[in-house]
Amino acid sequence: MIKERVKMEVIGLEIPLISGNEDYTLAELISTYPLEDKDVIVIAETVVSKIEKNVILKNEITPSNEAMELSKKLGKEPEVVQVILDESNEIVKLGPNFIITETKHGFVCANSGVDESNTSKGIKPLPKNPDKSAEEIRMGIEKITGKKVGVIINDSMGRPFRKGSCGIAIGVSGVCGLWDRKGEKDLFGRELKTTEVGIADELAATASAVMGQSNEGIPLVIIRNAPVPFTNGTGKELIRKKEEDVFR
Amino acid sequence: MIKERVKMEVIGLEIPLISGNEDYTLAELISTYPLEDKDVIVIAETVVSKIEKNVILKNEITPSNEAMELSKKLGKEPEVVQVILDESNEIVKLGPNFIITETKHGFVCANSGVDESNTSKGIKPLPKNPDKSAEEIRMGIEKITGKKVGVIINDSMGRPFRKGSCGIAIGVSGVCGLWDRKGEKDLFGRELKTTEVGIADELAATASAVMGQSNEGIPLVIIRNAPVPFTNGTGKELIRKKEEDVFR
Repeated sequence: MIKERVKMEVIGLEIPLISGNEDYTLAELISTYPLEDKDVIVIAETVVSKIEKNVILKNEITPSNEAMELSKKLGKEPEVVQVILDESNEIVKLGPNFIITETKHGFVCANSGVDESNTSKGIKPLPKNPDKSAEEIRMGIEKITGKKVGVIINDSMGRPFRKGSCGIAIGVSGVCGLWDRKGEKDLFGRELKTTEVGIADELAATASAVMGQSNEGIPLVIIRNAPVPFTNGTGKELIRKKEEDVFR
Repeated sequence: MIKERVKMEVIGLEIPLISGNEDYTLAELISTYPLEDKDVIVIAETVVSKIEKNVILKNEITPSNEAMELSKKLGKEPEVVQVILDESNEIVKLGPNFIITETKHGFVCANSGVDESNTSKGIKPLPKNPDKSAEEIRMGIEKITGKKVGVIINDSMGRPFRKGSCGIAIGVSGVCGLWDRKGEKDLFGRELKTTEVGIADELAATASAVMGQSNEGIPLVIIRNAPVPFTNGTGKELIRKKEEDVFR
């Protein structure tokens, strides 16, 4: 009665702690694992930001008056607030103890995605250009291994309507981001109900379930045999423009 | 340098087409597959609704004046609009060709989750009580197989800020829904950045990536070796209350 149709593997990998002083690239590191064609490699944004030395030292920040005032409202350090503002296009929602911005990339999220848990040494924003980072890692891996893979950089973000964070794709290369299925038919020959699938977000969430948030130490996940198109996707195509969004 | 830490398997299964006249339960059907303890079984809501005979025949519906008027605005049949209204607590956003409601369950989604692609025979709402359905399926499987499993009922929904649909968990049983990680520490001994993880949504998205939306015919997915707690979760605990949501 029941038939196996797809078997996808999700392999969570431990890597050495990234300090930002590595003498190797992420592509070189990842290529030490036996990769296969059509593997989707999902990497936690924190690792990408660190290896790209995208960390701002606190003593290099001079908080503006706006940051000083917001700092009191939010209960956050003025330096952190300054980085949140620097990383944003605009404030989307501001509450007594939260700030939701649109980042310069276009993501709507808490604190511009700036990592505060890292503030002992410095403050860590999201990678500057996650699509470009994903592309570089993918090209590097292809050069070293000859394998055609997809790369997704993921982050955990909160959501309207739903409690709890969920992994999303902030950078994509070599694999579909937004899957347009318009014109395709369902099992009964009817037009599809859902015509656009956020497939890279679904794979990012898949990886997040394995990465965890705690002391798992698994910032790298290989998804093998994912039934998705290996096209030239981007993370950008998953962002809904402000003027097309009825919830902004 | 790189160490394998977790290997999660995601098995997409084909099942017989569900007509609504089955002489077996979903638990009986699923139990024909060799399940293991701690498998997470993800089932597409459409299959659950159909086997529960939760399909409304068009000729049994008398559209109200409100449904008739909305029908013109939305370009949808009055009968479909009536079911959308019947399934909702309130209209959250209404546009020229879309309607976003809060369903009676509390989900904020397009068309109250009502499936219109099914309108040749009838109109299919979401399962009436997805947590209860998940619980019944899980208990049935446990009775037949003796295995302790988790059950998630998933659906694909659109999202603010992000393009494309993404799988979410509308019903949960036997596995964690919202994972509270407050008080836990990261690798550096710091308090976690994200304290609540929508883990059942991440697993629902995992399954959706394998199920597809088209003629894949894979409404059932087994997730094996998922590194998540097998606690008494619900789908309800993933719903953010209206008064706690700054985007409503």
